[in-house]
Amino acid sequence: MSAACIFCKIIKGDIPCFKLYESAKVLAFLDIQPLSKGHALVIPKTHGEKLHDVPDDELAELLPIAKKLALAVGAVDYNILQNNGRIAHQEVDHVHVHMIPKPNETEGLTVGWPAQQTDMAKLKALLEELKPKM
Amino acid sequence: MSAACIFCKIIKGDIPCFKLYESAKVLAFLDIQPLSKGHALVIPKTHGEKLHDVPDDELAELLPIAKKLALAVGAVDYNILQNNGRIAHQEVDHVHVHMIPKPNETEGLTVGWPAQQTDMAKLKALLEELKPKM
Ligand SMILES: [Zn+2]
Ligand SMILES: [Zn+2]
Repeated sequence: MSAACIFCKIIKGDIPCFKLYESAKVLAFLDIQPLSKGHALVIPKTHGEKLHDVPDDELAELLPIAKKLALAVGAVDYNILQNNGRIAHQEVDHVHVHMIPKPNETEGLTVGWPAQQTDMAKLKALLEELKPKM
Repeated sequence: MSAACIFCKIIKGDIPCFKLYESAKVLAFLDIQPLSKGHALVIPKTHGEKLHDVPDDELAELLPIAKKLALAVGAVDYNILQNNGRIAHQEVDHVHVHMIPKPNETEGLTVGWPAQQTDMAKLKALLEELKPKM
């Protein structure tokens, strides 16, 4: 719980929301500045700024509920997005997973994909560096 | 399991990958066309084209493993993205969650955010329509 956090206030009930789902661990509600019709959020009840700050058992519920949202909305094409850090487009510092329907080219999320060339040697070296940390 | 699916072939071991983690339900590996250093994927072992095709127990493992990836990579800012449908930028038709570090403005994911104006009446009507489906 963070006193200044708008999502903690929503969880506490101090600020209203368009609530779609609530369990002991998570809450889902409509985004009030949607990118498309049906754009909704799922958040863990524990205040964590970034994904790696949230306990695994709360993280585990987020995608099943995002799936529930997609099915309720009847979304055919959609993006699931969770941003960490201002440079990565995070605007509220309490972890939230977006379910954003993509009904056409203009509505919903648009993504830029500056893919790098495949460099097998670099990838192999990175793998060896990361494996012991997993 | 889908015979034509490249990710199913990776799971089966018929195609190699830069494997970072494997459990009974999920697999994580480096993206070979990364948007930034450390860009990795987590996939459920059950073949499902879109999020809503995957069983909840496999979905439940994806974000805890994405968190593990972010911690191993030491990502400070990053995006978690899962695309559903060609128009939503899905390129392989087997659910995959991207963990994409965002080290600076040019590398990593860039997102377009065409937010709509808040329309409380519309949101209220949508809420009433969706609530029985949750
Ligand atoms: Zn909070
Ligand atoms: Zn597959």
